[in-house]
Amino acid sequence: MRLLTRAAPDGERLAVATDGGLVDVADLLGGGSWTMARLLADVGASLAAIAQALARGDPTRTQASAGAVWLPPVTRPGKIVAIGRNYHEHAAEQGETAPPDPVVFAKFPTSLVGHDADIAWRSADTDQVDYEAELAVVVGRMAREVPVSRALDHVLGYTCLNDVSARDLQFGDGQWVRGKSLDTFCPMGPWIVTADEVPDPGRLRIRCLVNGEVVQDASTSQMVHDVPSLVAFCSRFMTLEPGDVIATGTPGGVGVFRDPPRFLGHGDDVVVDIDGIGRLANHCRVIGS
Amino acid sequence: MRLLTRAAPDGERLAVATDGGLVDVADLLGGGSWTMARLLADVGASLAAIAQALARGDPTRTQASAGAVWLPPVTRPGKIVAIGRNYHEHAAEQGETAPPDPVVFAKFPTSLVGHDADIAWRSADTDQVDYEAELAVVVGRMAREVPVSRALDHVLGYTCLNDVSARDLQFGDGQWVRGKSLDTFCPMGPWIVTADEVPDPGRLRIRCLVNGEVVQDASTSQMVHDVPSLVAFCSRFMTLEPGDVIATGTPGGVGVFRDPPRFLGHGDDVVVDIDGIGRLANHCRVIGS
Repeated sequence: MRLLTRAAPDGERLAVATDGGLVDVADLLGGGSWTMARLLADVGASLAAIAQALARGDPTRTQASAGAVWLPPVTRPGKIVAIGRNYHEHAAEQGETAPPDPVVFAKFPTSLVGHDADIAWRSADTDQVDYEAELAVVVGRMAREVPVSRALDHVLGYTCLNDVSARDLQFGDGQWVRGKSLDTFCPMGPWIVTADEVPDPGRLRIRCLVNGEVVQDASTSQMVHDVPSLVAFCSRFMTLEPGDVIATGTPGGVGVFRDPPRFLGHGDDVVVDIDGIGRLANHCRVIGS
Repeated sequence: MRLLTRAAPDGERLAVATDGGLVDVADLLGGGSWTMARLLADVGASLAAIAQALARGDPTRTQASAGAVWLPPVTRPGKIVAIGRNYHEHAAEQGETAPPDPVVFAKFPTSLVGHDADIAWRSADTDQVDYEAELAVVVGRMAREVPVSRALDHVLGYTCLNDVSARDLQFGDGQWVRGKSLDTFCPMGPWIVTADEVPDPGRLRIRCLVNGEVVQDASTSQMVHDVPSLVAFCSRFMTLEPGDVIATGTPGGVGVFRDPPRFLGHGDDVVVDIDGIGRLANHCRVIGS
């Protein structure tokens, strides 16, 4: 099941992407107000009800995907736990070895935008904006000290995330949070594919394209720490709550470590494409250029 | 006005600390369900209504502070923006100079606990837990690119925060987030003193005490970047939302840079005391010792 949040004049709406288009969950379940937050409050029952309604094939209004205004599938996660240097090739391209433990950092939730939105920054603030294609894990059930063997039980599903990074701010600060948390610097979406439809999150092709050119192309099998290990590791130190996002790190090929470096500019189109998950496309807009 | 959140059997309750004890805002305003989130949804009107009711001196039930179960005044901030090396003496004790721009990092909101709560960790995870007394700014109104001169208009008030830090994890990772975001590693409270009662947040004595011994003793006048500058700076890069917390950095005297280092241990009592704001007391508990 592909779960998404779309903007409506009266707020946000939880919807499902079907082959026929987008279906609002409220229409599917006979009314009421449905958001991702409501689904997360009772994941099991909500998913079962949606699946039943879809299986019955009840007539519901569908909307063309093209007309939708996409929000991040989770608009207000309690936290975005991001993992650094989690692909061998990406660690190597920055002259580092893969760390024995995952390196945790944060992106602030105010940086989130959805599919199709602009990534925007002021030229006065940064001129080294870079892409990072990542598989994002969305937590479905509270996780505290879960073993690796049970970790995936706590996952609602997976989505695409672009860990957009202002390299000058990131490396200037030493701490990575600010350069990775500018408003609009965390595109996520277009939807969450529920875990039941992703038999192995460790075997997905992940790519980044800038203006159609492939700039990252890897498999999640190249992660240093795989998805169950990351969930278990994080849950040992901090409670993972429904809606929390884990950004699992980016493969090699980012712009800053190319020779010469290649940064994003005004008008660039950036796509994160993960086989079996989806395609997240965003447009770059430089303010003051 | 001193605003706090206390735990009740049916959830959290917004209350006001008066000289006679704690008064639930619901009692003060004639019923309804009041939380800090509701207050933050309409700060101006909410504060005015509470102030009027207090001024009328309506008879209301008060509760002794001693019997309260204290939660963080804001239980679910969208983000905790923390500032590193923001006191000259603290920058110097780690062999650094004061940074030209504030150094931003994050504490995850799941690390929050209230006054009187335990700071707890497993001995297997860290044996270098340290205190950091900080003045916390709570955002009351959305701030985006606000100038320094208007920055304080966006502040609801101030509270005490202990930026508890597992130094082995913090310095081992390089990125500070994990070592500062273990569950219970962000005591905050006991209450928010509203900005109208804090004429100058840059002239407050701030102290940390461990088992009654003063280990940090400074003035917020020694900040490298003062409160209005921090609010303006953060709001330039990221939207500050009502309820967001800015932890403004700690003065000199932390345990890790002492000779010999002094870390927190099982049974220690830690107090953050800020004149005119309040006294935040917590107890250390080492699991597995």
